[in-house]
Amino acid sequence: MSTEEVKATVVPYDEVEATKVYISYNNVHQLCQEASAKIKEFKPDLIIAIGGGGFIPARMLRSFLKEPGMPTTRVYAIILSLYEDLNSVSTQNEKLGAEVVRTQWIDYEKSGIDLIGKRVLIVDEVDDTRTTLHYTVSELKKDVISQCQAKGGNPEDTKLGIFVLHDKLKPKKADLPKDVTYIAARQLPDYWIAYPWESTDIVTHTRKAIEQGNDVFLP
Amino acid sequence: MSTEEVKATVVPYDEVEATKVYISYNNVHQLCQEASAKIKEFKPDLIIAIGGGGFIPARMLRSFLKEPGMPTTRVYAIILSLYEDLNSVSTQNEKLGAEVVRTQWIDYEKSGIDLIGKRVLIVDEVDDTRTTLHYTVSELKKDVISQCQAKGGNPEDTKLGIFVLHDKLKPKKADLPKDVTYIAARQLPDYWIAYPWESTDIVTHTRKAIEQGNDVFLP
Repeated sequence: MSTEEVKATVVPYDEVEATKVYISYNNVHQLCQEASAKIKEFKPDLIIAIGGGGFIPARMLRSFLKEPGMPTTRVYAIILSLYEDLNSVSTQNEKLGAEVVRTQWIDYEKSGIDLIGKRVLIVDEVDDTRTTLHYTVSELKKDVISQCQAKGGNPEDTKLGIFVLHDKLKPKKADLPKDVTYIAARQLPDYWIAYPWESTDIVTHTRKAIEQGNDVFLP
Repeated sequence: MSTEEVKATVVPYDEVEATKVYISYNNVHQLCQEASAKIKEFKPDLIIAIGGGGFIPARMLRSFLKEPGMPTTRVYAIILSLYEDLNSVSTQNEKLGAEVVRTQWIDYEKSGIDLIGKRVLIVDEVDDTRTTLHYTVSELKKDVISQCQAKGGNPEDTKLGIFVLHDKLKPKKADLPKDVTYIAARQLPDYWIAYPWESTDIVTHTRKAIEQGNDVFLP
């Protein structure tokens, strides 16, 4: 192997760093604020946050959707795990061919809600391989059908929407049905996105976000 | 009425502002990080986030509780509403004598979990009148008893803990049982606490938090 070849396989440190995108809390907050105009056009009756990544954007979004004189949009949380993760030590969210398992779902009965005729916004932080979003949409559509069968109603009257902070421009492992409204605050290449809630040094994290222009707050 | 008396009843603008405490996202993140040492001593098996206020701290906390080689602590979400709020336009979280209603609760059956012998950490943003926390503890204790009756087990083996960002030093409307572990990141007078996720101008909000010393991040 020549020296040239060795060099070619070494990825410079700067290049590794460049593919890691630091996102600050204020940036996430502002992405939600910016997207809220489009989301208001979708007019969600309720929000379903996919945990853990969807919890924070969903809570932020709720403030921006609040209209004077109207009740706050309700946020329901669902938690999905990948089968292989349940008894493993992995922290990865999506794996090749992994089976999605419901760890927490909406308890329609106890919550006293159904999805019939509702406009439902699903919120997650990132659309990576689309596996989780596809699973969520499929399962919600099944719920709608069984609810319509039980109570009456047309499944087509339920409208599903998706909001993610970031859509990674990469081949997806699943397609979403055409009738699903899709809103991504940003599209970006298949970078490693470092969200603030995963950071154990938020000061350094925020500095890096500011350096990368991912935080508009400059005091 | 003399001029002096009139003056005495006027609250200066500065004083009004001083009773509103601005909390930045990074501040919340660091409060969770700081409290995580104490919370690790409690050793939670699972986290129950009270929505909407508990969602964000619970998600942040999860990162700090992660131990290498161990699975992530699961976060379940419950949503409570006050009866008067359900059909009103209010955004207040706690009212005198309001009845607490479960909007979302844990679906033990579908989630495949129970609380028997578990160490359960309840997370909310603020302990104001303690109404919501008291209700949550009471209901979870009922769940534990019925689960122990159904499956066997000693209800006393379940340990409940509470984590809040802020405990307001004010008369509480309810007491917590003595066997509940209580952790508050900060205690403060009965100020108006402005959390970042309620802000529609996060730049100004963060500036004010920094001015008040509620944000250690100073680039």
